Amino acid sequence: MLPVAVWVALLGCLQAQELQGHVSIILLGATGDLAKKYLWQGLFQLYLDEAGKGHHFSFHGAALTAPEQGQGVLAKVLESLSCPKDVAPDRCAELKGQFQRLSQYRQLKTPEDYLALSKDIEALVQREGLREAGRIFYFSVPPFAYADIARSINSSCRPGPDAWLRVVLEKPFGHDYLSAQQLAEELGSFFQEEEMYRVDHYLGKQAVAQILPFRDQNRKALDGLWNRHHVERVEVVLKETLDAEGRTSFYEEYGVIRDVLQNHLTEILTLVAMELPRDASSSTAVLQHKLQAFRALRGLRRGSAVLGQYQAYSEQVRRELHKPDGFQSLTPTFAGILVHVDNLRWEGVPFILMSGKALDERVGYVRVLFKNRAFCAQSEKQWVGDRSRCLPQQIVFYIGHGELGSPAVLVSRTLFRPTLPAGSWKELEARPGLQLFGHPLSDFYAYGPVREQDAYSTLISHIFRGRKDSFITTENLLASWVFWTPLLEGLAHEAPRLYPGGAENGHLLDFEFRGSELAFCLQQPEQLVPGPGSAPPRPSDFQVLQATYRDSPLVSAWPEELIAKLADDIEAAAAKAVQRFGQFHLALSGGSSPVALFQQLAAGHYGFPWAHTHLWLVDERCVPPWDPESNFQGLQTHLLRHVWVPHYNVHPMPVHLRQRLCAEEDRGAQAYAEEISALVTNGSFDLVLLGMGTDGHTASLFPQSPTGLDGEQLVVLTESPVKPHHRMSLSLPLINRARKVAVLVMGKLKRDITLLVSRVGRQPKKWPISGVLPDSGQLVWYMDYEAFLG
Amino acid sequence: MLPVAVWVALLGCLQAQELQGHVSIILLGATGDLAKKYLWQGLFQLYLDEAGKGHHFSFHGAALTAPEQGQGVLAKVLESLSCPKDVAPDRCAELKGQFQRLSQYRQLKTPEDYLALSKDIEALVQREGLREAGRIFYFSVPPFAYADIARSINSSCRPGPDAWLRVVLEKPFGHDYLSAQQLAEELGSFFQEEEMYRVDHYLGKQAVAQILPFRDQNRKALDGLWNRHHVERVEVVLKETLDAEGRTSFYEEYGVIRDVLQNHLTEILTLVAMELPRDASSSTAVLQHKLQAFRALRGLRRGSAVLGQYQAYSEQVRRELHKPDGFQSLTPTFAGILVHVDNLRWEGVPFILMSGKALDERVGYVRVLFKNRAFCAQSEKQWVGDRSRCLPQQIVFYIGHGELGSPAVLVSRTLFRPTLPAGSWKELEARPGLQLFGHPLSDFYAYGPVREQDAYSTLISHIFRGRKDSFITTENLLASWVFWTPLLEGLAHEAPRLYPGGAENGHLLDFEFRGSELAFCLQQPEQLVPGPGSAPPRPSDFQVLQATYRDSPLVSAWPEELIAKLADDIEAAAAKAVQRFGQFHLALSGGSSPVALFQQLAAGHYGFPWAHTHLWLVDERCVPPWDPESNFQGLQTHLLRHVWVPHYNVHPMPVHLRQRLCAEEDRGAQAYAEEISALVTNGSFDLVLLGMGTDGHTASLFPQSPTGLDGEQLVVLTESPVKPHHRMSLSLPLINRARKVAVLVMGKLKRDITLLVSRVGRQPKKWPISGVLPDSGQLVWYMDYEAFLG
Repeated sequence: MLPVAVWVALLGCLQAQELQGHVSIILLGATGDLAKKYLWQGLFQLYLDEAGKGHHFSFHGAALTAPEQGQGVLAKVLESLSCPKDVAPDRCAELKGQFQRLSQYRQLKTPEDYLALSKDIEALVQREGLREAGRIFYFSVPPFAYADIARSINSSCRPGPDAWLRVVLEKPFGHDYLSAQQLAEELGSFFQEEEMYRVDHYLGKQAVAQILPFRDQNRKALDGLWNRHHVERVEVVLKETLDAEGRTSFYEEYGVIRDVLQNHLTEILTLVAMELPRDASSSTAVLQHKLQAFRALRGLRRGSAVLGQYQAYSEQVRRELHKPDGFQSLTPTFAGILVHVDNLRWEGVPFILMSGKALDERVGYVRVLFKNRAFCAQSEKQWVGDRSRCLPQQIVFYIGHGELGSPAVLVSRTLFRPTLPAGSWKELEARPGLQLFGHPLSDFYAYGPVREQDAYSTLISHIFRGRKDSFITTENLLASWVFWTPLLEGLAHEAPRLYPGGAENGHLLDFEFRGSELAFCLQQPEQLVPGPGSAPPRPSDFQVLQATYRDSPLVSAWPEELIAKLADDIEAAAAKAVQRFGQFHLALSGGSSPVALFQQLAAGHYGFPWAHTHLWLVDERCVPPWDPESNFQGLQTHLLRHVWVPHYNVHPMPVHLRQRLCAEEDRGAQAYAEEISALVTNGSFDLVLLGMGTDGHTASLFPQSPTGLDGEQLVVLTESPVKPHHRMSLSLPLINRARKVAVLVMGKLKRDITLLVSRVGRQPKKWPISGVLPDSGQLVWYMDYEAFLG
Repeated sequence: MLPVAVWVALLGCLQAQELQGHVSIILLGATGDLAKKYLWQGLFQLYLDEAGKGHHFSFHGAALTAPEQGQGVLAKVLESLSCPKDVAPDRCAELKGQFQRLSQYRQLKTPEDYLALSKDIEALVQREGLREAGRIFYFSVPPFAYADIARSINSSCRPGPDAWLRVVLEKPFGHDYLSAQQLAEELGSFFQEEEMYRVDHYLGKQAVAQILPFRDQNRKALDGLWNRHHVERVEVVLKETLDAEGRTSFYEEYGVIRDVLQNHLTEILTLVAMELPRDASSSTAVLQHKLQAFRALRGLRRGSAVLGQYQAYSEQVRRELHKPDGFQSLTPTFAGILVHVDNLRWEGVPFILMSGKALDERVGYVRVLFKNRAFCAQSEKQWVGDRSRCLPQQIVFYIGHGELGSPAVLVSRTLFRPTLPAGSWKELEARPGLQLFGHPLSDFYAYGPVREQDAYSTLISHIFRGRKDSFITTENLLASWVFWTPLLEGLAHEAPRLYPGGAENGHLLDFEFRGSELAFCLQQPEQLVPGPGSAPPRPSDFQVLQATYRDSPLVSAWPEELIAKLADDIEAAAAKAVQRFGQFHLALSGGSSPVALFQQLAAGHYGFPWAHTHLWLVDERCVPPWDPESNFQGLQTHLLRHVWVPHYNVHPMPVHLRQRLCAEEDRGAQAYAEEISALVTNGSFDLVLLGMGTDGHTASLFPQSPTGLDGEQLVVLTESPVKPHHRMSLSLPLINRARKVAVLVMGKLKRDITLLVSRVGRQPKKWPISGVLPDSGQLVWYMDYEAFLG
């Protein structure tokens, strides 16, 4: 509570601007490290920026500490605040005095404490004849304390209906998707989505905060460039020289992916990848487009990552966490990740995320490298350095540290001269001798902030202004965890590569990619592998096994080789059919096993005669074609998008006629049978690809099915024991007319049925798969080792 | 005719190998430059290689010169032949002696001369008790002499039915498609296709001849690399330091494209781009795949090329060809061309062809540059040169000259260690200080031929062995001219950029590309432009013009800007419709104008909501869907392949039901109308894109059409005055239900109708376009300046 005199003095320096109302800012954990280091300074900066514009403030430093003691600590913190460089010492002392008088310590423990705070704020506002604008609660406390505080605020310290409430939350926001969702639900029971401001302080770093404005202000120049036709790759990098010593209790639980990649680097990636809204200043539009970018991220697989751990780490963990002598941590301190954005703008462009501790330098940047679009007619010897268009072109948002030592935006001079906000960014001065990414600074248009500003100051100002696009919404947070959690789980037992640390790492951590797979460039050096077991056998260690199964040829191999072999065999069949008949009729099954096959065909078979291939479905679920459960949808996403099959050669099953699903009276099965009869000679597909279920079903022909196992019908409606129940399927007699049938069986869940079916006779009523025996005799089984050998 | 003794001696040195039969080789133009310089040496080499394997030869040097004189010249030529380095002088003299005895001069002028030759050959063969294997006629004569010679050979000098005939032809093979076709037809009236061997001597150069074997022998390593996912670009380059002085009479007629690009560089390009047949040693398969590569080349446009001319050229032409003082030649002596190969393997990979005279160095190479697929975790400062995977990776077939001075195959060490035929290629020795493409030779696995061999020797050996894949078939030749002729015609009046020549060219000839357009990097320097007129105004010099036309808004601009504006407007309409209704129904017209629009939408509108867009056809020709005339085919090639529209959102018109075209009784029009009614609310498309014909037709609604101009029918069958006559079309009443209609009119051919229609009332019977007036009132005309202003 401030004496009236202070208010009067304050009003004086407001130069009679319009009164904006009173804002109370409650900093919870006011005496903690983050608060001491950044938050009070940020609040002071806010005060300096905004008080002059007619805003009223009161600042409440809260903690569990008893009032007298807390007061003392806070006084010291406030005394240590500093003014911007351009403020004279006298003026600074005056401003600090004002701020100190507006700030006070408060013990907040019980709901009653919160109620009392609320009453005090109301009293103040009323006494001073002000309007209450809103309250900001900044949670600078450990996450386990969130729930109690949130409950108390919600029950006892909300402002009146005309004022807003904003709560500011600090990471970690969970440990994986499930924990993040639980935390979000809990908070959601106390606060509205628009009341919550989750901080990722990288979004407040000046170079990062400049990404969207830069894209917006240079829209014209970037319009044709910011896409897969021009961008070669995007690198989002955060390298540290420090290691985790002294912090292993935290680090051992999180590791580099949760610590840095899931949040900071992913946020930066989305700022680069997202579609730029027409109105880039609209928080709603920005958040919505960012969320779309998240949704376009291709799922990560184990092969999407390389992991490392600096050699001294396990010893540090043993020492700090009192682990037994033999303890080896699997926590990665280095990670390289390959991300693909599956949309038209970015298809095929690698986004590389990389971060690690104990590396050779400390630096953070996001770098967009462009393809070389020039041809230099003269021999390289004669190039004039910075004028040659054949030198690499790039745009770099330099977050900080490194050779440059400060935030910057760099654009290759041969690209274009960028526009940056003149008031806040200025061209960097020449720094002869400085090399960035292998080039002198003079190769770039290089801009730095006029005034360097700490990320928290920026974010506190954005909270005050309600700029939600600088924060992590619940949807955004969960989308990020949806993206990262499968990888984290997949890697949980992976031994990271050990590295010595610093410059000694040499090429040890360099990595490269083929398709969607990442791998270290160098073979694992033996002397550095104390890992908890030897590496699992790799596919290439094995030959493809040729045997027989149910009196037909069997091909067995590790999944990767198996799929490669099957794809080769399909291409060979296609080439042969096209040569003989001018076309190739291929009937494909849905489900998960064929996805890898589709991807292999799409990415590795450029000579496949797609223009002469007809694609048919073996079976379909009775769902709309856009349903993710639709077999056709899988075919479309994983194959059709990537190859050039003529539209009229693609034959989805008509399960959705007249906006209904598989209604008998719509005669979809009959229509499909007619289509087959009209186009496929004798109804003999050149190749039918089948799978096998754990119950012995194949296509959508289930045990005891009254239709499809025999009889005259070519295409039938069937019932599945699992959802969705209604299906359409080629019949067994039609399948058996095929020139060639391939059955693909993968995974250890199939082991039992594989064994069983190997022993039974032809009993399609019991095991429909046992009825598969094409009249041509051409049946081949493709089983991975897990399905075949267990 | 050889004395028996010689044959006996020869048989002696054959070491009693199997007798292969007698081959007569007739070199026409035996005393010309090419023959003197290369062909006799090549024949001698053939003799050295093959005589020991049981082949018999007689060599006939033929020309128009009288026998005595010709004999003298020939004797001199034969005397100057040289043996391979590893043959001792004595042995060489002996071998030359044998060859000289087998070779004789012959005057060939009249058909009688040819008949006499034939009889002499028959007599020789009979006398020696040999079997005639075949005859080779090598045409080293100007093309105007081809026809007479060919006629004489065909009528009077064919071997018997058991022996083969091969005629070898030297370029030029025509001047454009038409002349090449005429020449081919003429030759085709005398010879079978398999009898003709058209020489492109670059196919005999060792590095070029090694491209396919290299791809074959390194199939495994290249399999995953040789495609758009890994190749950044391909450069096919032939730089010369010499200029055309002394040869301008030839050069002025051909220019650099016909001289070098249409043949040599294009052949090399196809060897890189073609699918590798399973059996790479099969000539038939190689030729067939090569032809497919030709057919996949995207058509060149004026914008696909940059042209230059060294400054002294015009003066040389004036002097040598006695042109008047003011004469300026437009013949290019430098060209850079951007080629795209439109198939799944190469889509989006730039193939750059470049050649020129008076450049800074003499060198030829084809270079495949790979995308950087590595991330180097350590700062570049600390990279160890040749071990870093982040350095560029490339495969180079070095044709010759340049820094290296000899043919070579180079593969970056970080890529893979290649396999080359051990007998004929060996690793190059270290050459410290030598830099190739900015890298020391030690960065590459570098191989050179064990024995350098002249291209003609190689080709003569291939002719002898019947290896047709080293030669240009008629189909191949015509495919190449189909590819080049439109560009040559388009550029015929283009003034090339002048360049000083040699190292002084600086960056003047550097060029760069955006999409499919090439341009010099540097603006045309004024002092070098004496061109015959000022450059035409560029689109960007103009604003888009907004006016009204038939009381509706009109947008007019240069084509490029007009299309860009229309694409923007369509995207805006799509975004709005999707936001409001969740989907966007777009009906598109066929024809040529929309192609540019489709390309613009495909390449420049990454945020377009394709997933929610339904595509309908405004009209269709009654042709099968795979017919190039099909409107749907155009839509598929130029738009659907490149964007992700769900299959079930694409609605081609059913003009080909039950394998028939637009049969009334198949009720295709009714079916389309039902489909529209089922999916499009009120049958109101969100946007209909129309065109306008020179007769005032729109969609496929022609003047006086009995259907579609009024009435209840939504979709109708109509008749076109031009082929194909049968059409299906949306009706005028349906079109007018649209929320928005855009009419796109381009080209000066439309000027008259544009003017006419601007003045008439609503008379759809006379001018169907005048009936377009949507109930919504939302009609916009898009006309380029040529259509609108003439």
